[in-house]
Amino acid sequence: METRADDFYPTRLERPTESFERQDPVVHNKGSDRTNGPLSETELTHYERDGFLVFNNFLDQATVRQFREDLRGYEDDESILRSEGTITEPGKQEIRSIFGIHELSDRFDRLTRDPKILAMVRQLLGSEAYIHQSRINFKPGFHGKGFDWHSDFETWHAEDGMPRMRAVSFSIALTDNTPFNGPLMLIPGSHKTFLPCVGRTPEDNYQSSLKKQELGVPNDRDLAAMADEYGIKAPTGPAGSLIIFECNTLHASNANMSPWPRSNLFFVYNSVENQLQAPFCGNKPRPDFLGNRSNTEALVPVPEDEGRKTG
Amino acid sequence: METRADDFYPTRLERPTESFERQDPVVHNKGSDRTNGPLSETELTHYERDGFLVFNNFLDQATVRQFREDLRGYEDDESILRSEGTITEPGKQEIRSIFGIHELSDRFDRLTRDPKILAMVRQLLGSEAYIHQSRINFKPGFHGKGFDWHSDFETWHAEDGMPRMRAVSFSIALTDNTPFNGPLMLIPGSHKTFLPCVGRTPEDNYQSSLKKQELGVPNDRDLAAMADEYGIKAPTGPAGSLIIFECNTLHASNANMSPWPRSNLFFVYNSVENQLQAPFCGNKPRPDFLGNRSNTEALVPVPEDEGRKTG
Repeated sequence: METRADDFYPTRLERPTESFERQDPVVHNKGSDRTNGPLSETELTHYERDGFLVFNNFLDQATVRQFREDLRGYEDDESILRSEGTITEPGKQEIRSIFGIHELSDRFDRLTRDPKILAMVRQLLGSEAYIHQSRINFKPGFHGKGFDWHSDFETWHAEDGMPRMRAVSFSIALTDNTPFNGPLMLIPGSHKTFLPCVGRTPEDNYQSSLKKQELGVPNDRDLAAMADEYGIKAPTGPAGSLIIFECNTLHASNANMSPWPRSNLFFVYNSVENQLQAPFCGNKPRPDFLGNRSNTEALVPVPEDEGRKTG
Repeated sequence: METRADDFYPTRLERPTESFERQDPVVHNKGSDRTNGPLSETELTHYERDGFLVFNNFLDQATVRQFREDLRGYEDDESILRSEGTITEPGKQEIRSIFGIHELSDRFDRLTRDPKILAMVRQLLGSEAYIHQSRINFKPGFHGKGFDWHSDFETWHAEDGMPRMRAVSFSIALTDNTPFNGPLMLIPGSHKTFLPCVGRTPEDNYQSSLKKQELGVPNDRDLAAMADEYGIKAPTGPAGSLIIFECNTLHASNANMSPWPRSNLFFVYNSVENQLQAPFCGNKPRPDFLGNRSNTEALVPVPEDEGRKTG
């Protein structure tokens, strides 16, 4: 396959190629606009250095409980269990993720349009934004499997046609993150480098890759170099904690070895100026529940009094 | 299968049965003999409460390095790679464990007869002791798989005919234990309860169980009750750290998600007064490299000046 002239991040190549520096800013707001928002200069500097930020107790406990109750309801909801966006554990019927949840749940939709969150997103992306992907993740006690190391941007670029690194993920814990229930692990600083991955992408790759990712996985040598240089962090904290991470930050999670389930809300903002194109891997686009192309207008904040407390 | 009259810990049963309190002391030394040894009353009390003890920097760094060098040598040693006691990763040729290592390595043999270690063992077991099992474990970077929760005693009782809980395991880290390279996790206090396991043991079960244990695994409900009551601990520390744990302490480890390999020395002392009988599961005994029956005389300490520094 030839690389397109507009492809700033060639990947899924036949042969291993060298990693290279990202071609995009990490914080896209410029000049005096930079600190025009809820994030302080210190927080922005940390985000630029590490590729993520952690806010403990971001979501109040009442709202966390409501989301957890919704989630228990989904386990008995046949229409959700049969939905294309519902992914089960390899070889099992246990739910692992429900994609497109902001279109199924009013509560989730309102959360993605929370005024404070959208103000942070505008500050980081330097523009209005829309939801590229949303999901609830379940990791049941004892039986929740892990995810290998990867950059989300690599997949969104190759399989969804996201042209530039101008997207940011929000992950809100609905259960405590402990060292034993398979918390998110990140390599701080890894977002500054793009690691091209090897291997032609088969059509409909997502049908297997959501259960176990085989493509879009960096090679061991590149990963080891990143972890050796930067180390690994696994933020732990109580339910309600928020982790904001840049779309190219390498992350993974281990299996849940505890009896305690782990669940979280996950939603990705993409800049309205970074609209999806044809996938750079040459395949047809993935379904909307993975890479939204239908509803890409700037999100409108919910009025303050309709939102729940975040802080 | 009928349960033998001398079976104090029936397991591998057809139907789930209730867990019950252990029938044996945790520290077997009695009266004034109790503190006649290197372990203080505080340490003994912690061991009785938690079922394990941790000593950071137990083995000096020079000795750690020598063991690591030996270990690298084994990876190129065809006779070791082909040995029955050498276990590879499921589906791969990477070494996971070399059993019976104290009979292959003089250095390991001398370590198991270290005067200070043997004095601790006598203090805990209340008698002389011999090596029931020894091994070096390898957990390669990225590719080392985990072990599910289990009690070693349950397997040694069912498959090796170890009659009573009067054995103790020593695990010495040859690499740093971090939260990310699949360190040993323990449930403190779990050693006080015996969790019978369900399922008839097939002959030669060890040939598959060493790669992935399917039998001798407590049910989720019992495990969750233990973890809810006692929590989970994963001691981390530098290479050279020692973890002593009681034979019935529930333990597990997660996959190694870091690029850094994890390796450790593992050796089990059984009381000379707790000699193996016919396996309680009714099968023929496992090979000597798993449950030693050939060489069960009291270990003789090496002279102090032949030993390496432990502290």
